[in-house]
Amino acid sequence: MGDEEQEGVFLGIDLGGTQLKAARFSADGTRVAMENAASNAGGDAEEIFGALYSAASTLIGGSRLRGIGVGVAGLLDPGSGRILNSPNIPALSGFALRSRVREAFGDTIPVQMMNDANAAALGEYFAGAGAGSSSMFLLTLGTGIGGGFVVDGNLWTGAAGVGAEVGHMCIRADGPLCHCGARGCLEACVSGWALMRDAGQIAKRHPESAIAELSPRTPLTLAELASAGDRQARALWENAGAMLGTGIANLMNLLNPDRIVLVGGLGGAGDLLFEPARRAWESQAFKEARTFTSVKPGVLGKWAGVRGAIQSFLKK
Amino acid sequence: MGDEEQEGVFLGIDLGGTQLKAARFSADGTRVAMENAASNAGGDAEEIFGALYSAASTLIGGSRLRGIGVGVAGLLDPGSGRILNSPNIPALSGFALRSRVREAFGDTIPVQMMNDANAAALGEYFAGAGAGSSSMFLLTLGTGIGGGFVVDGNLWTGAAGVGAEVGHMCIRADGPLCHCGARGCLEACVSGWALMRDAGQIAKRHPESAIAELSPRTPLTLAELASAGDRQARALWENAGAMLGTGIANLMNLLNPDRIVLVGGLGGAGDLLFEPARRAWESQAFKEARTFTSVKPGVLGKWAGVRGAIQSFLKK
Repeated sequence: MGDEEQEGVFLGIDLGGTQLKAARFSADGTRVAMENAASNAGGDAEEIFGALYSAASTLIGGSRLRGIGVGVAGLLDPGSGRILNSPNIPALSGFALRSRVREAFGDTIPVQMMNDANAAALGEYFAGAGAGSSSMFLLTLGTGIGGGFVVDGNLWTGAAGVGAEVGHMCIRADGPLCHCGARGCLEACVSGWALMRDAGQIAKRHPESAIAELSPRTPLTLAELASAGDRQARALWENAGAMLGTGIANLMNLLNPDRIVLVGGLGGAGDLLFEPARRAWESQAFKEARTFTSVKPGVLGKWAGVRGAIQSFLKK
Repeated sequence: MGDEEQEGVFLGIDLGGTQLKAARFSADGTRVAMENAASNAGGDAEEIFGALYSAASTLIGGSRLRGIGVGVAGLLDPGSGRILNSPNIPALSGFALRSRVREAFGDTIPVQMMNDANAAALGEYFAGAGAGSSSMFLLTLGTGIGGGFVVDGNLWTGAAGVGAEVGHMCIRADGPLCHCGARGCLEACVSGWALMRDAGQIAKRHPESAIAELSPRTPLTLAELASAGDRQARALWENAGAMLGTGIANLMNLLNPDRIVLVGGLGGAGDLLFEPARRAWESQAFKEARTFTSVKPGVLGKWAGVRGAIQSFLKK
């Protein structure tokens, strides 16, 4: 605790639709303590903030707090510190997160806010699977699909701070309807919710199928069923993988980053997802582009976001 | 000629599948003379280089040549100065363009080579429709579809120099086959060749149609037919525009540049193409993204590429 007393601590928070993850970091970026809690996403904004405050207070203890970084699922306005729109935590849409954090922790405390996928991208770039790359595109493969693009150590966030929304890149113009209102977005073709939608349709059409009898029906149990040889479950993952590979090929042809990093729960399906993905990008991306882009799984797991959220506080 | 005698001149060359364009520029980037010629794309590499050499020699006259910039349709290896692959000028695949230029014009002459769409992007960014933007994505809408992405004055070319190949971003996974071997690339859905393919299919199925009787059958005459009210021709442009708008929405969501600039011959169709495109991107891109990205036509016309090709020689 000697260094922490002298140099103070940073707090990284990753506020997702299901889980709240928080961690205390020492001034050199080492993660020294973690907290996990439900994010209360069904509650109102103050209940959600309450979960954050509670986890944060426990982690800070008596240490001198030098900065808080928050990655949050949604579109943010970096200027005002507001959450513009959070599809997975609707109560936070319009919430003035930065000023609420300062009200609770002190009104001079540095607060860094960013999209959760951008936070994960910074974390993997500086302390994970992005090591040694100069440009890295990260995809989060979870209930939805997010993205973060890091170039020479900086996030590419675009003119409105909205960049890297790879989940809403259309890859199938006449494909399934997406939550965003468009058709055939990457997320509508491969994501946790897209898999559950497709599995639900199979269950309805084939009430005698193994998929219909699967309980609970989750991406994880669907992967177990596919691994056990169920033909319909295998076909679902085959299709999801092909769509993911098409999205990856697009990133290779359009951005040609050094590295593409894949994180998130769907990755638990392993080669059920990644083998058809690889076949797709190898047949669809230019050889020149894919030769120079390596695709790797993330290495920080669910702690990538909290690490990325505090990156801007660290000494370079 | 006083300034040119003192400061010398730069030569910009744009070597396309049909036309060779070349221009002489003074040291401040002013275009002072132009040449247009057929690019001899059907000939061998030396015949193509002969057309380039002839136009260049005419333009240089007795001036002191300080640098040559060449934009060329194809994938280049900036290190070796070779053309790796040129689908529209097959004889140039493998051609060592930089060393051939130096052999002809002097082996100490600075030679800047780049992809033709990248050259057009630099031209519009510094001297055209990109003025005032910090990030600009340019699409070339011609026989094929090319792209160039300029960020803070620098081309984004990716890890292998292949970046911004927007023509080969898949937008329709089960769509038409592309020349590159993949399905549903932007270029396979909207481009000069895609329009000609679709018009040809209509002509075959409906030999009595106005499209079947159209001679010559080109994007321009198809646009005239649509403007005159022909239902089938209108539907072709409507579909092309919707696909273009989907591609633009993808760029807004993924990159969110300040500006998207559209150049190239298909733009001659005007609102036949751009109105359905606008409807598509307005319904498909995030409001936050499209609000901060303006879409504009290029202003340098066919001279964007020669201007961009010499950009690196100019004083900043």
